[in-house]
Amino acid sequence: MIDRDSINYFTEDGSEGAVNARMGEDINPRLAEVMASLVKHLHAFAKDIDLKQTEWDYAIDFLTRTGHMCDENRQEFILLSDTLGFSMLVDAINHRRPSGATENTVLGPFHVADAPRYAMGQNISLDGVGESCFFSGRVIDQNGNPIEGATIDVWSDNANGYYDVQQPDIQPRFNNRGIFTTGPDGHYSFRGIRPVSYPIPHDGPVGEMLTALGRHPNRPAHMHFMVTAPGYEKIITHTFVDDDEWLTSDAVFGVKASLIAAVEQGKEGDTVWKSSFDFVMTDAVA
Amino acid sequence: MIDRDSINYFTEDGSEGAVNARMGEDINPRLAEVMASLVKHLHAFAKDIDLKQTEWDYAIDFLTRTGHMCDENRQEFILLSDTLGFSMLVDAINHRRPSGATENTVLGPFHVADAPRYAMGQNISLDGVGESCFFSGRVIDQNGNPIEGATIDVWSDNANGYYDVQQPDIQPRFNNRGIFTTGPDGHYSFRGIRPVSYPIPHDGPVGEMLTALGRHPNRPAHMHFMVTAPGYEKIITHTFVDDDEWLTSDAVFGVKASLIAAVEQGKEGDTVWKSSFDFVMTDAVA
Repeated sequence: MIDRDSINYFTEDGSEGAVNARMGEDINPRLAEVMASLVKHLHAFAKDIDLKQTEWDYAIDFLTRTGHMCDENRQEFILLSDTLGFSMLVDAINHRRPSGATENTVLGPFHVADAPRYAMGQNISLDGVGESCFFSGRVIDQNGNPIEGATIDVWSDNANGYYDVQQPDIQPRFNNRGIFTTGPDGHYSFRGIRPVSYPIPHDGPVGEMLTALGRHPNRPAHMHFMVTAPGYEKIITHTFVDDDEWLTSDAVFGVKASLIAAVEQGKEGDTVWKSSFDFVMTDAVA
Repeated sequence: MIDRDSINYFTEDGSEGAVNARMGEDINPRLAEVMASLVKHLHAFAKDIDLKQTEWDYAIDFLTRTGHMCDENRQEFILLSDTLGFSMLVDAINHRRPSGATENTVLGPFHVADAPRYAMGQNISLDGVGESCFFSGRVIDQNGNPIEGATIDVWSDNANGYYDVQQPDIQPRFNNRGIFTTGPDGHYSFRGIRPVSYPIPHDGPVGEMLTALGRHPNRPAHMHFMVTAPGYEKIITHTFVDDDEWLTSDAVFGVKASLIAAVEQGKEGDTVWKSSFDFVMTDAVA
């Protein structure tokens, strides 16, 4: 016979303990730590708000529809994580840097690994659409010394607010993408377009959520940068155009004060915008 | 120009506030309450364990695969909720009852709305497989008075551990299902099979999770009951066979002490098992 007194019965008050006590003793200790915390917070969430059965029904359906929205071209769970600030939080936890070092922000879904390599100063806007913008600056260490051989991988949407991979039949491949390598002076420069804001895909469950929450799906205009150099910690970040109307309310919470970069007119008669930003790298973690 | 000082920048410490401050003022107040708590606990989870970027990557993939596993015959997100004790917690929160009243437990995925109606005492085992078992008892109020006109909807797996809806080509339709209505004495009785334990579907992401956690997918043998009567709160529950090896470790945490029911041999020479259980209903909430 079963010793009924030995049963750790599930109760509302003891729910977390009943679930976590089930974990085996020989499992991966990190998994045990993560799952115990997940169960603790999930259960506390339901208790704090007395989650209704109908709300649970809705959540199951929402998660299912979110899963069904995911395919090779669309990752609705990443959008969900992004719009709940969870992606930026994980990014922050994993990229704590000393003051003065360039801050990280989320990679986003539009990076492509094998963009063309260009010489400094070249133009990455292959469709010629949009207001021309000259990006420049330096890659330096925390003491201000130039870093030679740093790789700067940049990407942005086009003037209509779409990345090339979203419009493979319309935009030239690798439109508004390029990879540059610094020389001894650590300088970089290239010509692209003045970035424009765009909405994240919002025709799915995450878009419904944003609407219900009274939020918009827009990201302020930005240029993506991935900066790598031997011996230094990789920087994945954006620079944000300083006068964008969505700067105060980025749908994915990517804006940091230190990443706002002025986009200015050149001298009179020069139609090319200019944006300057220095990247300050930290030593790679051993 | 944008007033940069007005921006509620996202920071690791202030992440919850930055996200929740975005909600509009005119949204559904319950939605605002639920989402604020969800964001609070999600962010606290990531912070408590310093969630790694690679773990986030894994979680996105896990959720995506869970979503892709869901179709009209399989609900992997419900299995996930069940195995994390979340379904039972929501059930507990929504069905707090006074001592002595029959406790609720989860509906599960195998209820069918339109089972056949039978007279008391009839047999619901249509395939004739399994050890015969006679279920009986009373439907009463909290004062012990019989409830007339109560509807008792019952369902169980067959002797091989599968419900009819899982084996539409093998089992007769409505095998081990039936609906009974009490007379003035409140009594019910029917013949079925002695319930057998079975594993929840575990060939998907949830099964992987259970394995990684050192847990098994089994549910102890049980008979499902849904009891309704005009003026009383609906009871959705199971009775659990008292000597089942999985009684102490139900994969979905459905076992409650008050729901364990003896399954006993009748008098010598009688091969029919007997299980008796009384349902104590509470007044419907106005």
